[in-house]
Amino acid sequence: MKLSKLGEFGLIDRIYKKAKNKDVLVGIGDDAAIIKAGNKLLAITTDTLVEGDHFSFEYFTPKQVGKKAIEINVSDIGAMGGIPKYALVSLVLPKDLEVGIIEKIYKGMRESGDHHKLDIIGGNITHGTQLVIDIDMIGEVKKENLCLRSHAKPGDFIIVTGDLGASTAGLNIFRNKLINHNYVKQKHIEPKAKLNKVKPFLKYINAMIDVSDGLASEVKHICEQSKTGAVIYTDNIPIKDETRDAAKAVKKEALDYALYGGEDFELVFTVEEKNLNKVKGFLVGEITKKKGVYLYSKGKKTLLSKKGYDHFNV
Amino acid sequence: MKLSKLGEFGLIDRIYKKAKNKDVLVGIGDDAAIIKAGNKLLAITTDTLVEGDHFSFEYFTPKQVGKKAIEINVSDIGAMGGIPKYALVSLVLPKDLEVGIIEKIYKGMRESGDHHKLDIIGGNITHGTQLVIDIDMIGEVKKENLCLRSHAKPGDFIIVTGDLGASTAGLNIFRNKLINHNYVKQKHIEPKAKLNKVKPFLKYINAMIDVSDGLASEVKHICEQSKTGAVIYTDNIPIKDETRDAAKAVKKEALDYALYGGEDFELVFTVEEKNLNKVKGFLVGEITKKKGVYLYSKGKKTLLSKKGYDHFNV
Repeated sequence: MKLSKLGEFGLIDRIYKKAKNKDVLVGIGDDAAIIKAGNKLLAITTDTLVEGDHFSFEYFTPKQVGKKAIEINVSDIGAMGGIPKYALVSLVLPKDLEVGIIEKIYKGMRESGDHHKLDIIGGNITHGTQLVIDIDMIGEVKKENLCLRSHAKPGDFIIVTGDLGASTAGLNIFRNKLINHNYVKQKHIEPKAKLNKVKPFLKYINAMIDVSDGLASEVKHICEQSKTGAVIYTDNIPIKDETRDAAKAVKKEALDYALYGGEDFELVFTVEEKNLNKVKGFLVGEITKKKGVYLYSKGKKTLLSKKGYDHFNV
Repeated sequence: MKLSKLGEFGLIDRIYKKAKNKDVLVGIGDDAAIIKAGNKLLAITTDTLVEGDHFSFEYFTPKQVGKKAIEINVSDIGAMGGIPKYALVSLVLPKDLEVGIIEKIYKGMRESGDHHKLDIIGGNITHGTQLVIDIDMIGEVKKENLCLRSHAKPGDFIIVTGDLGASTAGLNIFRNKLINHNYVKQKHIEPKAKLNKVKPFLKYINAMIDVSDGLASEVKHICEQSKTGAVIYTDNIPIKDETRDAAKAVKKEALDYALYGGEDFELVFTVEEKNLNKVKGFLVGEITKKKGVYLYSKGKKTLLSKKGYDHFNV
């Protein structure tokens, strides 16, 4: 769920206002909204794939497109500490799209859905010039497991559940039509939600977010919502040799992919020092009282700047 | 919520399967899905507007587009006997779309949202070649108010809450660039969900659906889900003189607009004879044991055929 683009337009405050309904515990500004429904907490999110922007049939099979559509939403529910339960599927279909392709997309969605034990309970189909797949997902969260972006505290360590940069490396390998590099290609075309990696220790997590836009961007979101700063230890970021090789093959830096790329769908969370031994993952930084997100490497600390993103054209 | 197009492709049975989760009370095949969340029943739906297909900035203001996006979803929740509570907004924005237009679309959504006392609690923004607005809506339904398409019984009367055909008449007036005809134009560009018309007597309603595709199509949906047939008394269908005048101006039949047009967003429901005095609306037909939907006028009964829709090119 991403409305942060409204920030770019300077619209978010003018457009959205605080929910009036007291059952809305979390509205705009997290991976999913959280509402109270009777004695349950529900996490609700939506995410969209647009052909040409989020996938290309040049490297994705229709089934992989369907799987990706489900996984990215499961990832959002997982980033709240929740379990996915229901999905609705809205499709905008170009008139010349073959029925067989639609069927395979659904097959992928169902396979991922079955894997995560969620039911597809409805949706909508309409026509348009471009294939658009919009998924709405509803999950349940136990109160004690709820992980909000806003709950990071100064002194927390920042942990990531797995290696970063591979998906963006894969995309660039595809775009440059290079052979081999199968690890990063696979990471790009079959992203997987990582909620099971954090399930055993959700109650020890303070803040959490999924990595859809690169580590730097996600840590920044946590800091903005938690009113903190952070230092990212760039030398500690887990990056596979396969990702470094792929980056090198297209003359880019793997670290840039990890920091500013995206779609790794690993989870980034913060945890108090005393609970460090309760969680698993890679320690990549810490939350600070002082505002601003800094990159730290070999004794040098540099402020993360907007330039970092803008100059990074994947 | 419309997945009936999958029927056209012959896909619905192959793609969708019965939900495994026992909390899914109603899945595919109604205006909204119904799930149990603790001690509550939630109605969940999604509907999409595509520029050029569902609206055109030639006759819609951006604010009216935003309002329409909310109203059509409120209409779906209302057709289940529910009350809307929360909405998520997914936008696909062409790169050259002005910020001011986005802001006005949101303004319209908020105005309609405020009117129906629902909160916009999240969403997603991405880029594409065509403006797409997808709304997900969640409402609550009291068990005794739940109105399913499948609950019509032979002998039930079919009631519609208001006049039909006006929206399609308005669309055609716009397309032909005719002046005046303000009633039908207004009906087209500012559709309104009619849930308040049925609120006082929801518990007496058996089956219900909203008129997004014309009366014939909606009665057919009720019959398919309820395993019944129906007779529509075409002379009883409420059609305003303004709609007849507009249809005449573009050399079309107002009755065709009412039967096969769409987007009137009135509600069609069925009710047992003994409860007829408890409800308000226009009696336009009855549910029969014998399958097939028939049109009845001046002693003549004709079977509704697929031709009816196909030959009707609005």
